[in-house]
Amino acid sequence: MATLLHIDSSVLPGEASSSRSVAAAFRGVWEEQHPGGTVIHRDLAADPVPHITAAAWTAGLAAPAARTPEQAAAFAVRETLIGELERADAVLIGAPMYNFSIPSTLKAWVDNVYLIGRTAGETPSAKGTPVVVVASRGGSYAPGTPREGFEFVQNYLEAVLRDTFGMDLEFIVPELTLSTRVPAMSDLIPLYEASRERAFEDAARKAKEVAERVAAA
Amino acid sequence: MATLLHIDSSVLPGEASSSRSVAAAFRGVWEEQHPGGTVIHRDLAADPVPHITAAAWTAGLAAPAARTPEQAAAFAVRETLIGELERADAVLIGAPMYNFSIPSTLKAWVDNVYLIGRTAGETPSAKGTPVVVVASRGGSYAPGTPREGFEFVQNYLEAVLRDTFGMDLEFIVPELTLSTRVPAMSDLIPLYEASRERAFEDAARKAKEVAERVAAA
Repeated sequence: MATLLHIDSSVLPGEASSSRSVAAAFRGVWEEQHPGGTVIHRDLAADPVPHITAAAWTAGLAAPAARTPEQAAAFAVRETLIGELERADAVLIGAPMYNFSIPSTLKAWVDNVYLIGRTAGETPSAKGTPVVVVASRGGSYAPGTPREGFEFVQNYLEAVLRDTFGMDLEFIVPELTLSTRVPAMSDLIPLYEASRERAFEDAARKAKEVAERVAAA
Repeated sequence: MATLLHIDSSVLPGEASSSRSVAAAFRGVWEEQHPGGTVIHRDLAADPVPHITAAAWTAGLAAPAARTPEQAAAFAVRETLIGELERADAVLIGAPMYNFSIPSTLKAWVDNVYLIGRTAGETPSAKGTPVVVVASRGGSYAPGTPREGFEFVQNYLEAVLRDTFGMDLEFIVPELTLSTRVPAMSDLIPLYEASRERAFEDAARKAKEVAERVAAA
């Protein structure tokens, strides 16, 4: 029975959010392929995980038996989140760009699950797990654009999810999502709509590919 | 009367934190130069600011008079934080690297203060304000090191504070701070100690420079 870990982090609800909409499309196709499977859904906007604390962080450096009661209690949340990541056959993350980087709620998730000796280090526990990130963004930050050097979502998640956790990372990138909200960007609406259409196509295709790969494993 | 905005974000308390210790040294020299001045201290670990919400974010896109009561209420926190940044003659930020990037609490602060038409846009309101960031980090991410491509603290804060807010940004970078906690890094302790000493020297020198510049302005 396949398990999908589905994380949303947009502050906008439902269809108002590109990352949520595209992730939902991915999940729909996944569920068709794995009707008896499990989806663990974490909505980090509705239910943020705690910021990392001194106790939770130092607990991760200590052997479990050597933890103080305070460290053990603080580590429980990390254990839950790490367990979800380790249990997942595939991971889907909605990661809208906020001010060039990931939302603070998603950074809090990263700070909780990043742990040398588990998810990071010599033999990372989620190594090889497929992860698809819907990296929606208000403008365009593609190579060759003026804002190329301001892209701290894909570059950062590559460093963490791919290069550290060893996961098999792919992106879906709906761009120019602010064009419908900001009058000065209205000329860009056709490009936004094309990008959105491509994102939904990508989501359907990648969901099928990942679901089939997980089924065959 | 000069105002310093002093932000800490390390989860570790007092001297256990390199970024707090070095920032405190900077602040001490600043206060000697401006004994009658004001220091606004934000400890984001002890008192995190809220994650951005849909109401707080969309409020920033709406004219003040057009905001719903919910938007107006959510925006009040942003107004406070933006006001502190705008009022400051100088800004001091302790920004330890957590998992290659800034702490989630500091990202939440960025998401609150980043506002087109105020801190960002054509005439950013904190343009020219000196900001010194203590970018402490567990390892070394200097140019030429194997981890150079994993540096998302200085690169990110340059994009926000310097290139968007137009602030006059300088860094102090105590490195290898994990060497005293992680046995495998114990060979690096002398390099850590040298880096720490340089950081305190930098803090004293930069604090004096910034304080004199503010006094002369």
